[in-house]
Amino acid sequence: MTDSTLVLTAHVGDFVWRAAGAIALANSRGQRVVIGCMSFGERGESASLWRKGYTLDQVKAHRREEAEQAAKVLGAEVRFFDANDYPLVETPALLQGLIDLYREVQPSVVLTHAPADPYNGDHAFAHQIALKARVLAQAPGVEGPGEVIGAPPVFCFEPHQPEQCGFVPDVLLDVSEVWERKREAMEILAAQKHLHAYYTELGARRGLQAARNSGPNLGLPNETRAEAYMRIYPQVTRELS
Amino acid sequence: MTDSTLVLTAHVGDFVWRAAGAIALANSRGQRVVIGCMSFGERGESASLWRKGYTLDQVKAHRREEAEQAAKVLGAEVRFFDANDYPLVETPALLQGLIDLYREVQPSVVLTHAPADPYNGDHAFAHQIALKARVLAQAPGVEGPGEVIGAPPVFCFEPHQPEQCGFVPDVLLDVSEVWERKREAMEILAAQKHLHAYYTELGARRGLQAARNSGPNLGLPNETRAEAYMRIYPQVTRELS
Amino acid sequence: MTDSTLVLTAHVGDFVWRAAGAIALANSRGQRVVIGCMSFGERGESASLWRKGYTLDQVKAHRREEAEQAAKVLGAEVRFFDANDYPLVETPALLQGLIDLYREVQPSVVLTHAPADPYNGDHAFAHQIALKARVLAQAPGVEGPGEVIGAPPVFCFEPHQPEQCGFVPDVLLDVSEVWERKREAMEILAAQKHLHAYYTELGARRGLQAARNSGPNLGLPNETRAEAYMRIYPQVTRELS
Amino acid sequence: MTDSTLVLTAHVGDFVWRAAGAIALANSRGQRVVIGCMSFGERGESASLWRKGYTLDQVKAHRREEAEQAAKVLGAEVRFFDANDYPLVETPALLQGLIDLYREVQPSVVLTHAPADPYNGDHAFAHQIALKARVLAQAPGVEGPGEVIGAPPVFCFEPHQPEQCGFVPDVLLDVSEVWERKREAMEILAAQKHLHAYYTELGARRGLQAARNSGPNLGLPNETRAEAYMRIYPQVTRELS
Amino acid sequence: MTDSTLVLTAHVGDFVWRAAGAIALANSRGQRVVIGCMSFGERGESASLWRKGYTLDQVKAHRREEAEQAAKVLGAEVRFFDANDYPLVETPALLQGLIDLYREVQPSVVLTHAPADPYNGDHAFAHQIALKARVLAQAPGVEGPGEVIGAPPVFCFEPHQPEQCGFVPDVLLDVSEVWERKREAMEILAAQKHLHAYYTELGARRGLQAARNSGPNLGLPNETRAEAYMRIYPQVTRELS
Amino acid sequence: MTDSTLVLTAHVGDFVWRAAGAIALANSRGQRVVIGCMSFGERGESASLWRKGYTLDQVKAHRREEAEQAAKVLGAEVRFFDANDYPLVETPALLQGLIDLYREVQPSVVLTHAPADPYNGDHAFAHQIALKARVLAQAPGVEGPGEVIGAPPVFCFEPHQPEQCGFVPDVLLDVSEVWERKREAMEILAAQKHLHAYYTELGARRGLQAARNSGPNLGLPNETRAEAYMRIYPQVTRELS
Repeated sequence: MTDSTLVLTAHVGDFVWRAAGAIALANSRGQRVVIGCMSFGERGESASLWRKGYTLDQVKAHRREEAEQAAKVLGAEVRFFDANDYPLVETPALLQGLIDLYREVQPSVVLTHAPADPYNGDHAFAHQIALKARVLAQAPGVEGPGEVIGAPPVFCFEPHQPEQCGFVPDVLLDVSEVWERKREAMEILAAQKHLHAYYTELGARRGLQAARNSGPNLGLPNETRAEAYMRIYPQVTRELS
Repeated sequence: MTDSTLVLTAHVGDFVWRAAGAIALANSRGQRVVIGCMSFGERGESASLWRKGYTLDQVKAHRREEAEQAAKVLGAEVRFFDANDYPLVETPALLQGLIDLYREVQPSVVLTHAPADPYNGDHAFAHQIALKARVLAQAPGVEGPGEVIGAPPVFCFEPHQPEQCGFVPDVLLDVSEVWERKREAMEILAAQKHLHAYYTELGARRGLQAARNSGPNLGLPNETRAEAYMRIYPQVTRELS
Repeated sequence: MTDSTLVLTAHVGDFVWRAAGAIALANSRGQRVVIGCMSFGERGESASLWRKGYTLDQVKAHRREEAEQAAKVLGAEVRFFDANDYPLVETPALLQGLIDLYREVQPSVVLTHAPADPYNGDHAFAHQIALKARVLAQAPGVEGPGEVIGAPPVFCFEPHQPEQCGFVPDVLLDVSEVWERKREAMEILAAQKHLHAYYTELGARRGLQAARNSGPNLGLPNETRAEAYMRIYPQVTRELS
Repeated sequence: MTDSTLVLTAHVGDFVWRAAGAIALANSRGQRVVIGCMSFGERGESASLWRKGYTLDQVKAHRREEAEQAAKVLGAEVRFFDANDYPLVETPALLQGLIDLYREVQPSVVLTHAPADPYNGDHAFAHQIALKARVLAQAPGVEGPGEVIGAPPVFCFEPHQPEQCGFVPDVLLDVSEVWERKREAMEILAAQKHLHAYYTELGARRGLQAARNSGPNLGLPNETRAEAYMRIYPQVTRELS
Repeated sequence: MTDSTLVLTAHVGDFVWRAAGAIALANSRGQRVVIGCMSFGERGESASLWRKGYTLDQVKAHRREEAEQAAKVLGAEVRFFDANDYPLVETPALLQGLIDLYREVQPSVVLTHAPADPYNGDHAFAHQIALKARVLAQAPGVEGPGEVIGAPPVFCFEPHQPEQCGFVPDVLLDVSEVWERKREAMEILAAQKHLHAYYTELGARRGLQAARNSGPNLGLPNETRAEAYMRIYPQVTRELS
Repeated sequence: MTDSTLVLTAHVGDFVWRAAGAIALANSRGQRVVIGCMSFGERGESASLWRKGYTLDQVKAHRREEAEQAAKVLGAEVRFFDANDYPLVETPALLQGLIDLYREVQPSVVLTHAPADPYNGDHAFAHQIALKARVLAQAPGVEGPGEVIGAPPVFCFEPHQPEQCGFVPDVLLDVSEVWERKREAMEILAAQKHLHAYYTELGARRGLQAARNSGPNLGLPNETRAEAYMRIYPQVTRELS
């Protein structure tokens, strides 16, 4: 059985800025990666397109294309729920769609937003519904195609202003070997150009932190590139390291 | 270079009840394991010996022998600082002794007590001085034999009443394959017999929790035996799992 | 005026595993105890019945009968809201039904779920709506039969994986004298047999903890059986103990 | 066996402002109450005496006399450790004195300061050493006269600026029936006259809060007078209320 | 450009008890202040009117008139959303109305409820929707009249039982110079007369606390009157003070 | 009366990396700024000098000179306590020296380390003793030259790995106008060259965060340079902003 990673995001841009390294890394090791974007980020994260006079449909189409290109660069499949953002709200269709996706993908790892974000309520909502759908997908009594899932660990990716979101990294993932692919994916997101420098610097900063916190065995160099994550459930392991 | 594990405890019994699984597991994989016991637990954790009329020296000798036997069963070396318990307090000799031990062992993993324990102040103290000595052992300006150490991860083992100590497990370590050796080590501690049943049950309970939280890849069975730990520093890794 | 206890749960099994001791104890002292089950736990907590091929109606009927038998053993009345589980969601009927039940029972004590449970969203939801209905039932301007209620204390019972749910016991209730009735009630729940051993051990473990934390006056023995609770509002008392 | 209450404070005034109600209440029920004052509050809480030109010895004598009078009004014994305040620090004599007092009094209830106070470090210190001595007094291996003690519950009284000290009341103690004695004791403390109005108002405010949080059974009136406390260990009880 | 303050409350009374000082102060400095009341507090905070036999419409009319008078005294405009209280719930109309009000007022400061209140769920809801609407009003893609808003700081006012609501003051606002106007506004709220004494005392208590925490520059006297607030976002400033 | 700022640090480098902006800003407004360095950072933060073969005295002399130069660039006075680092411990001389310095400077603002730092125990110690000395310096009964001090606000500067230290910024200070002087001061610290790039980036990042959190009135540009601080006591103010 092959491993697979499921990434659930509020908006199309989120998987690029926050988790492209983890995605490319999983892909580079032969895993299947499926990204579920709950909305296109059409209202809340496309200001530059609105300022150009795009219509709603044009904004969506543009963001969709960007997401598809970025996913391709990272070696991932992408699904769109088109559930409307700002505010993203729960509908029966969205919830069932997520349950079905869990059962289809049978993920061994789940990535999604952190629990709180006072700068963007859609992120907190996406976290909640991603966890809710995961629990529902585990129950034989809940309808849906395919087999129930197991208990995949959940990793929350880093929000834009982590301290104000209660985000404290518990995992620093070394993504140095796929950093070029993250950079390439970021460049596709032309509508949010101001974020490129920020996330490039963040990758280096988390990398330096990873180096400083890596024990003598791992021994990472200062030039490491890393992404930070926060776990929801305890780590289960056969070795302390 | 071989991995090595350094275990720093307040009293001689602590490494058996709380970390024997991790110790035996490291040993079974060819690692060196060194245990530093700051005291013999002579005043605070030897009530049954005092009730038999032992003198202080007899209590210490008895606890020392138990610790040596238990360490042997687990495949570990043990060092005694004999720094007096109840209360265990900081002395220059204890602090320097710990720094020197860090530099001698060059640990890739450190195990010690959790930061708080309202039922036993020695445990909280041992946590503090273990972390303090680790930071000092990293500095070239601090005297002592041998090379400065790197930044080994620190894992806090589970206190006796975890919820009242602010202990929330972030790591569940599968110790099933060495459980028999933990059981054997526990049986050596005749002075604290009432704890055998408790820690046997705890091993099964943490094991079941590990099974419930293990993703489809690890797929642990319900009969797993586990120990719980809490990290002080973020995990640094090359793979999310 | 007689005391009365109101127990509000997400699923039918919850009152047995988590609060049967408190229920039987209240009953043994002549109190009225009313249990309100928001759902039958038909989807989320009846996996063994689904695997046997039961239909939804058969699952519900089966769980209802179990709950009625268990309530009888404990000396309590039980009401069913049949509001569907996995996910349990707010409807005007459920909310009004809970308000009405508060006003009918006029509870002096309320028991319900803890605020968070990342393993089961229904539990967190049940907590929220139980507290919401309690506040609404206090207001003269909110419609419903009977008198407004006072301010009964609320006790949250212990979730299955307490540490991951932020559950820290503030109350340990000695239920030794009714433990046999809890055991008998647990045996009725054939669909969740794997939980019997777990909750039997938990009763002993919380009992030992109660013994260790009981002052010289109460002086509980090590063989105590106890249930753990967490308060939402401060304790109001005429004596420190 | 008679109940007894042990009150451990940093300065002589603390037991009056923060715990006089609990003390008088215990006394009124026939309990022995012993107050241990670690210092006279001579440097930190006697500003008005210094401004009058008193010498250190005069300040101490004055505060001692006030404390003795106040204790008498409340029906309690008082012991003075004269360990110097501002800063109050640990000495072997103070620690052993506290252990001995625990063993002499064999308390069924302990009252002391809360864990943190950024406005007065002596309060936080007194909390720490009071808890440390309690644990040491439980151990047969620790020297001292008398029998080891059991596990009396510990209640922290309310600091002057509770929110900045992390103080959240978990217990509201109805002290209405002894309020006049608290008032009388407060009037004795002439050196801190500005606090009379504050603690009179606090008694009424905590009383109103107690009324609002008391269930239908206790049913306290709005005119209740109360003191707030925070527990260190879980409550152990035979009845939820 | 003139400063303006937007105050968003669950019920009509809230702005008087909790924020009248801040409102009158802003008005006294020439700012525009607009108050948005989500409901009239007709069910949950008008018990005395229901007991007099008022109909729902009469209750609403009465509370509306009080609010208008109080706002006039404080120099503020008031808008009513009439969204029904107990429970106050999200509707598209309420959310859009709040977005529109943000865009109309273009606030430089926002005041609303704190995040949690276990005594009144409407308060926590009002907090959530006030913050949600603020973020939505910032996005060019969200429809509505007028310009998008900037990032005004948000201050949460003090709930009635602050400690049980997790409220820790980070800002103490000196409102001494407008205290008479707060007093006058409070007197208008005849339906909640029991709160006058409480909030008068609170103003003095927070004032004394402000005096004790004011550095030598501000140097506030003990007779200060103050209101407490909690920030959601970090303070941005050009001077530490 | 002129304002004055007192900065208390564990090691000589700390005031440059963490607070140079605040210092230069205060100086630029005509305030007196006094920096108290508890140690030279000779053991813990001078690794490059030890590697060059410097003796202890040479290391201290070198770090002292750097500190004097950096202080001069920032317009501040600097005092050295030479209390030895790694570990920095409390001595009567250090405590009295700090009390005396508080009384001499009569600060209107105090800057020091944050309460916790698992990477450097000296920082946490310096925080504790800085706060302890501040409270002692307020008491007439504590000896020392000069007048007692008032209640200056305390701001904790940002540690190197903020999230692992529990540091959440509550104040973002715009230091753009003095950024060149901070840069110049940083360049003096040749022994810690690897930190220049880090703190340059941090200044830009906190500046961007300040811009994003500044309301419409302050309206900071994205190119702002800022330093982050955390308050120990509530802000006291005459205006919400």
